[in-house]
Amino acid sequence: MTRQATPGEPSIWNNVQGIAFGGDYNPEQWPASVRLEDLELMQEAGVNFLSVGIFSWALLERAEGQYDFGWLDEVMDNLAGIGVKVALATATAAPPAWLVRKHPEILPVTADGTVLGPGSRRHYTPSSAVYRRYATGITRVLAERYKDHPALALWHVDNELGCHVSEFYGEEDAAAFRAWLERRYGSIEALNASWGTAFWSQNYGSFDEILPPAVAPSTLNPGQQLDFQRFNSWALMDYYRELVAVLREVTPDIPCTTNLMASSATKSMDYFDWAKDLDVIANDHYLVAADPERHVELAFSADLTRGIAGGDPWILMEHSTSAVNWQPRNQPKMPGEMLRNSLAHVARGADAVMFFQWRQSFAGSEKFHSAMVPHGGRDTRVWREVVELGAALKRLEPVRGSRVQSRAAIVFDYEAWWASEIDSKPSVDVKYLDVLRAFHRSLMLRGVTVDMVHPSAPLDGYDLVLVCTLYAVSDEHAANIAAAASAGATVLVSYFSGIVDMQDHVRLGGYPGAFRELLGVRVEEFHPLLAGSQLKLSDGTASSVWSEHVHLAGAEAVQTFTEYPLEGVPSLTRRAVGSGAAWYLATFPDPDGIGSLVDRLLAESGVSPVAVADTGVELVRRRSADGQGFLFAINHTREDASVAAAGTDLLTGEPFAGVVPAGGVAVVAEG
Amino acid sequence: MTRQATPGEPSIWNNVQGIAFGGDYNPEQWPASVRLEDLELMQEAGVNFLSVGIFSWALLERAEGQYDFGWLDEVMDNLAGIGVKVALATATAAPPAWLVRKHPEILPVTADGTVLGPGSRRHYTPSSAVYRRYATGITRVLAERYKDHPALALWHVDNELGCHVSEFYGEEDAAAFRAWLERRYGSIEALNASWGTAFWSQNYGSFDEILPPAVAPSTLNPGQQLDFQRFNSWALMDYYRELVAVLREVTPDIPCTTNLMASSATKSMDYFDWAKDLDVIANDHYLVAADPERHVELAFSADLTRGIAGGDPWILMEHSTSAVNWQPRNQPKMPGEMLRNSLAHVARGADAVMFFQWRQSFAGSEKFHSAMVPHGGRDTRVWREVVELGAALKRLEPVRGSRVQSRAAIVFDYEAWWASEIDSKPSVDVKYLDVLRAFHRSLMLRGVTVDMVHPSAPLDGYDLVLVCTLYAVSDEHAANIAAAASAGATVLVSYFSGIVDMQDHVRLGGYPGAFRELLGVRVEEFHPLLAGSQLKLSDGTASSVWSEHVHLAGAEAVQTFTEYPLEGVPSLTRRAVGSGAAWYLATFPDPDGIGSLVDRLLAESGVSPVAVADTGVELVRRRSADGQGFLFAINHTREDASVAAAGTDLLTGEPFAGVVPAGGVAVVAEG
Amino acid sequence: MTRQATPGEPSIWNNVQGIAFGGDYNPEQWPASVRLEDLELMQEAGVNFLSVGIFSWALLERAEGQYDFGWLDEVMDNLAGIGVKVALATATAAPPAWLVRKHPEILPVTADGTVLGPGSRRHYTPSSAVYRRYATGITRVLAERYKDHPALALWHVDNELGCHVSEFYGEEDAAAFRAWLERRYGSIEALNASWGTAFWSQNYGSFDEILPPAVAPSTLNPGQQLDFQRFNSWALMDYYRELVAVLREVTPDIPCTTNLMASSATKSMDYFDWAKDLDVIANDHYLVAADPERHVELAFSADLTRGIAGGDPWILMEHSTSAVNWQPRNQPKMPGEMLRNSLAHVARGADAVMFFQWRQSFAGSEKFHSAMVPHGGRDTRVWREVVELGAALKRLEPVRGSRVQSRAAIVFDYEAWWASEIDSKPSVDVKYLDVLRAFHRSLMLRGVTVDMVHPSAPLDGYDLVLVCTLYAVSDEHAANIAAAASAGATVLVSYFSGIVDMQDHVRLGGYPGAFRELLGVRVEEFHPLLAGSQLKLSDGTASSVWSEHVHLAGAEAVQTFTEYPLEGVPSLTRRAVGSGAAWYLATFPDPDGIGSLVDRLLAESGVSPVAVADTGVELVRRRSADGQGFLFAINHTREDASVAAAGTDLLTGEPFAGVVPAGGVAVVAEG
Repeated sequence: MTRQATPGEPSIWNNVQGIAFGGDYNPEQWPASVRLEDLELMQEAGVNFLSVGIFSWALLERAEGQYDFGWLDEVMDNLAGIGVKVALATATAAPPAWLVRKHPEILPVTADGTVLGPGSRRHYTPSSAVYRRYATGITRVLAERYKDHPALALWHVDNELGCHVSEFYGEEDAAAFRAWLERRYGSIEALNASWGTAFWSQNYGSFDEILPPAVAPSTLNPGQQLDFQRFNSWALMDYYRELVAVLREVTPDIPCTTNLMASSATKSMDYFDWAKDLDVIANDHYLVAADPERHVELAFSADLTRGIAGGDPWILMEHSTSAVNWQPRNQPKMPGEMLRNSLAHVARGADAVMFFQWRQSFAGSEKFHSAMVPHGGRDTRVWREVVELGAALKRLEPVRGSRVQSRAAIVFDYEAWWASEIDSKPSVDVKYLDVLRAFHRSLMLRGVTVDMVHPSAPLDGYDLVLVCTLYAVSDEHAANIAAAASAGATVLVSYFSGIVDMQDHVRLGGYPGAFRELLGVRVEEFHPLLAGSQLKLSDGTASSVWSEHVHLAGAEAVQTFTEYPLEGVPSLTRRAVGSGAAWYLATFPDPDGIGSLVDRLLAESGVSPVAVADTGVELVRRRSADGQGFLFAINHTREDASVAAAGTDLLTGEPFAGVVPAGGVAVVAEG
Repeated sequence: MTRQATPGEPSIWNNVQGIAFGGDYNPEQWPASVRLEDLELMQEAGVNFLSVGIFSWALLERAEGQYDFGWLDEVMDNLAGIGVKVALATATAAPPAWLVRKHPEILPVTADGTVLGPGSRRHYTPSSAVYRRYATGITRVLAERYKDHPALALWHVDNELGCHVSEFYGEEDAAAFRAWLERRYGSIEALNASWGTAFWSQNYGSFDEILPPAVAPSTLNPGQQLDFQRFNSWALMDYYRELVAVLREVTPDIPCTTNLMASSATKSMDYFDWAKDLDVIANDHYLVAADPERHVELAFSADLTRGIAGGDPWILMEHSTSAVNWQPRNQPKMPGEMLRNSLAHVARGADAVMFFQWRQSFAGSEKFHSAMVPHGGRDTRVWREVVELGAALKRLEPVRGSRVQSRAAIVFDYEAWWASEIDSKPSVDVKYLDVLRAFHRSLMLRGVTVDMVHPSAPLDGYDLVLVCTLYAVSDEHAANIAAAASAGATVLVSYFSGIVDMQDHVRLGGYPGAFRELLGVRVEEFHPLLAGSQLKLSDGTASSVWSEHVHLAGAEAVQTFTEYPLEGVPSLTRRAVGSGAAWYLATFPDPDGIGSLVDRLLAESGVSPVAVADTGVELVRRRSADGQGFLFAINHTREDASVAAAGTDLLTGEPFAGVVPAGGVAVVAEG
Repeated sequence: MTRQATPGEPSIWNNVQGIAFGGDYNPEQWPASVRLEDLELMQEAGVNFLSVGIFSWALLERAEGQYDFGWLDEVMDNLAGIGVKVALATATAAPPAWLVRKHPEILPVTADGTVLGPGSRRHYTPSSAVYRRYATGITRVLAERYKDHPALALWHVDNELGCHVSEFYGEEDAAAFRAWLERRYGSIEALNASWGTAFWSQNYGSFDEILPPAVAPSTLNPGQQLDFQRFNSWALMDYYRELVAVLREVTPDIPCTTNLMASSATKSMDYFDWAKDLDVIANDHYLVAADPERHVELAFSADLTRGIAGGDPWILMEHSTSAVNWQPRNQPKMPGEMLRNSLAHVARGADAVMFFQWRQSFAGSEKFHSAMVPHGGRDTRVWREVVELGAALKRLEPVRGSRVQSRAAIVFDYEAWWASEIDSKPSVDVKYLDVLRAFHRSLMLRGVTVDMVHPSAPLDGYDLVLVCTLYAVSDEHAANIAAAASAGATVLVSYFSGIVDMQDHVRLGGYPGAFRELLGVRVEEFHPLLAGSQLKLSDGTASSVWSEHVHLAGAEAVQTFTEYPLEGVPSLTRRAVGSGAAWYLATFPDPDGIGSLVDRLLAESGVSPVAVADTGVELVRRRSADGQGFLFAINHTREDASVAAAGTDLLTGEPFAGVVPAGGVAVVAEG
């Protein structure tokens, strides 16, 4: 843990004023006249923070050892001149053509042996010793050159590690995997026991015999698959650490980070593990335009990011002013949506709002990705909204450093996600995030803020703890959850949780082994539903995906199945535990069913909404160290909406009159 | 033909008592205490037969030449001690890691050149000389060690040959393919003529120039594709024969087999050809949970297995007690379904009921596959039903060795299946099994048992012969079918039959060349239907997939097309032939249409149901050599059902009262 | 430009009489007796032109340097004997097995590195120096042998260049790509600027570093992708030119061509560029059976072919008498459809009607592809229709050499097609052909013939010019289009046109940069529609796919959007320009909306239908150099239809009575 910030204090990750505002800046794509205009426009918009040099290696080191820093010197000086701070990149996210030509062995290899070539980006494997040598080389040169530059505020290490490719199957990866396994297990006997290699004649005589789980005739050993996911997540971070070691040596006072992609779509990296090595959490987030509830997904991703940050303020390192270019149909943002998105991130803990990118490219793969300065220039809605956002963020300076607080938690574990979605499970419809996000959504719609916490985290601050599809769990983490119930919390566990230990070994004697005692139930057999089918439960609730043969063993039935062959079998149970309670949910209710259950759980646990407001208003409260509350109220409807709150709306500077206009936002400094 | 059994006599493939009962036993996955409990539970369930060592190579030969038989000695001795007989495996279905590391050239290669690696199972090509050397090595060691062991009853050679991978494209496969072709054709001129290589400049100057039909710019030569399928089926069996040669040398009195996967889903192996080399037919069968008529598919597969066995009793080597783990949604079996499935197999000729596997794994790819002893242990429905099944099978001892008899036959030919589904046909909707299974289903629903026979089989025992989609047929086999009609049988031929000879050469002069004379029709042109479209026929029947321009040439029209451009063209014809008749079906009627046609064919041929019963009761009769009939009545409904039969219900020991309870089974020893 | 014909004069590409008639002839697949019968049948049908030897290399050169011309000598002599002229192939479309075995480096390689092997056809890359050496070798031998043969009328160079594989990723292709780039750009700096390699660190230090855009972690540089498409189109033609150089040297008086596949399905070859090297345009066309408007697609493809031919008569080198074998469901042609198809091609400029193939194969990949002589022989509808067609074409001799004329043009550019469909665009639903074909269809249904013209073509002959989805356009071509409007034409530009230059660089300052001034609009941002959604426009028209934020800047709004967030924004605009007008269409109206717009454009431009006729009659007029008009009226309905025309119906030799029978055709020599 190298995190250097103190909670509640101004973050050290930049020394800019107020909520940071800016984006990726790629001046190398533009002529001098445009770069000059950039400086004016940045001042007009109130930009104070930029990421520079992310994809600049080929122009900084034009051939091996031939450096060209002239353009970057000028950019850094000019930015310093207008008071903009810089997150300077290590420039390593895309190796130059000369390096690929000299060392094609740095290229990533897929599961079927295909080598992924250059011509796009991220064409290297993090386990390549050669690549690491060159990457640390350019990193050191950059660090030495700019270590004393007044614009330098943060190191942006590489970029979106694990994007596009997050599993690496080359020979050097295989060797690194073997070494990692040897460190993990110590002996080959321990590995054989963990992977259950007695099955299908998979026993290994030595670590040398092990390969990555590449294409094979049939399904691969699940222990091997799970460890390979762990290894790949580790290998990316290990590469990060090697670059950071150089930076810490040269610039010990400059914090380091890399931009995560925490969201419902990123599965391969264990960001809770990664967080230990980041001085500040930075995240990139993009809406899925086709999702009519995309602001709900945004809230989930932002809450997850705050969870990864351990509650500390974080940087929104990238989002978009309008359309992206990589979805099938790239709808632009609606009027006001960019402001709502930006302030929703701030509401949920961001102290910086940044975009990809400053100026929309005229060439290359992302030329139809929106930017702060669009193709159409200043006479556009996008530019006007950028200027408006800059002004708004300036007014939110008091919010900076404050923290979101919550009495409800959802347990989140990337390892459980990985394990639960390896092949050969009872049903492909069991997806780690589905039940979890259904609860998150239902709580959000009710104005209840929820923290996403790792199963190892202390749970004593929470009155409501939700454990969803936590297929794999260690004894220790299961005990942590049980202790929360004993201590008075309402704990709900959903089906397909606690089935295996962290070696993916089934806990025998009846499911869900890790929580059987806590919950007071014993499940005899799973009854996943066929595609498209639904069940009616005893109270009329509709459910899908899953049912199972539950026996009571201490719990009471709250709700039952009604259909053959499970008529009368419990579908929802409750057991009083210590001063709390443990609920078990054995099916996936529809949104109304989830809502009713959430109401019940909120009532029992005493967790209440942040504020009272009309439907469609997103509500979150940040609170500063001195107790000042800031209520964010974001109106996602196209009608004005009432919010019961009193204080000053920081965005207007006026007393808050109880109404948030259609599509608008209020940030009420309460009291 | 090395089959050693005499029909009607007790089979020699095991020397267990009654109907054999058991499953795959993998004790190497478990500690000693569990292995001890196994012995108790086996006795409780009445297990008397187990397959052992299928995936044990890596634990038997832990490094090259370093054997560890201690655990297997103990298992064999313990099983012998409780009277359980063993089908001992050659352990060759998954090469150990040390062998793959030393000889990666044994790995299978796909059509696009991808090498399939280790980490799952079946990662070898049967044409690898190195692999054969090692596989015969471990086989010989096992045979020598256990040749006199009292538990040894049968050799289980390798496992599910052709599963996962059944086409092999490596260099050694190519060489074996060339050698096979040279033996088949004798001269390159004969091959060129057979494959029609004058088309697209594909002429070969010598066998050395030939490659497997791997990925190419466009569609590959169909003769080459067909021969490659023949070759691959042969290569797997040739490997089998090499292992069996060792076993016969060491243990001449122990029969040998390998477990087939005969069903609607297995296409690549010509099991009618394979049967010649198996001492007893063994089959694995798994339900498709999402199929509401999965018992109909089971009946088809069991009838096909009996056909492959030439009517002899066979071993159901694997099925499941409940859910499997490899379908998208693995629904468990319903209460009583395992018993119905098991006895349906027995009804259709099985003298052994075995499961994968004895005890459900706690690790590995198949840990969510049901077993005889589930994760939940003895206090489960599955275990109780296993014990019940064991008792039922004990009561069916009189059935053992009896044979199913039928007066109706469906002609089945894997080569015709292969040829009919090679690319570049008139319609992708023409699937070999579709019409065939529609007739099988319709006959089954009417209580008529049908044999699946190879076109080379004598047909004189049959009054009704169905020839469905027999696209490719030899002159000799076509004559065999025609002779059946002349001799009095009702023969029906469906569209896209008799189109080509076994070289895939079109029989010119009008379709269906091989049956034109027999049927008295001439087809001028095919009119396959567009996706999703349907036709109305003259009697109101709906049909799909196919129509064609049929001219009468001796036959009479029974039914006609009604739509442009085929208004008035015959869709169903009949020609009196000798003392029989030949019908031609030129379209694919819907189930009602198939049903009406079946009624007509049954009336004409005089073939009648096994018994009279309520709808939903599956009926089959086995008859012993001494004439004793055993009527199996399996009630697939959730209501009690009447069956007109008299005698003793073997399952209860009581006189059969004419009613089979909801979901139940009766086995009536008639008379 | 080596084209040797003079417009309006009898073409030089064959010296056959009248409209040429015949097909691919593959006598090497048949015994002598059949080849003898062929000669009789050809005379019965009136065949006068055949393509010979297309896939004969392996039988002409049976091993390296071992030639066997006996069979071809006989065929050529026999055809000469009955007056049939021959398009003799270079036989290079499928290298023989001996050549592949000796030189596997000639095989094509795909983007993921897979080598495409032999066994089908077209298994070579055009950039292989070895392959070119062998291909020019066999070409020279053939040319020398048959240079004075009386049957020789045309060289058929290779076959369907670019079919199956049109992108080549091997090492020799990479080298050729680099050399092509060096010629194109001169300096690496120019390439870097053009490709925008400052993005994603893609800068190149030298041409040696460049690779084809093979598989990579993410999207590839769009400039590289576009140039790779240009290169591949060029490489195929460069190979063609090398073969033609040999032919011109040996037989300077024999014209050369290769059969294109111009249609809605062929994208990879720039046929407008290719046309410069062809002495006569030859095209292959196949219907999509499942398309209920397949005659509309045929008309589009034929018009495109005529455009490629610059308006000169062309050869329909292949189509089918009935079903093909490569679609999912190969429906045969309906009665009369082959005649309608054939004469539709003639109506739109074909002076030859040829088929694949003369006699239906009994073996090989295409044995279920229809032919002039079907499997069923002479007593078939297909053969009777072939004979009928032969007679009809003989009667159309006066039409030969006449030309189609039109006052409406659609601009067509393969480079714009390529550029518009590279990844990372605003919407995957924007397909180059969709709007273009919607306008073509609407004009065709109204009896208006339209020319397909390259944006570089003179537009002064046109009163109506449609510019659809011309995403990429050069300044020069944009000026050509603007000049047409100034000169009096009605010009319509549809959305996503003029967005980039030919380097795929966005034209900044507001879309559509290249046409902003002409159209008098400025588009601020794209609003592509989500999947399946529709819009209502101000006049009630429904539209889909696209909307955008249009500002008027000189134009007037004709129609507007009505839905949030674009209420009131123009969806269709018009600006008076010089003596003409420039329209802009900012969405994709449904067929009725396109129809209304077409009516409006026709009225404004004064373009009128070819003739007045009932609905469902296709109308085209060819006119000979002396002014004689030939009105083709093709009745696609199953009812008789009226056509207002006077003159002699060439097909009957009688005065045209004003009615075209159901499913029939009239060719009225007017006056």
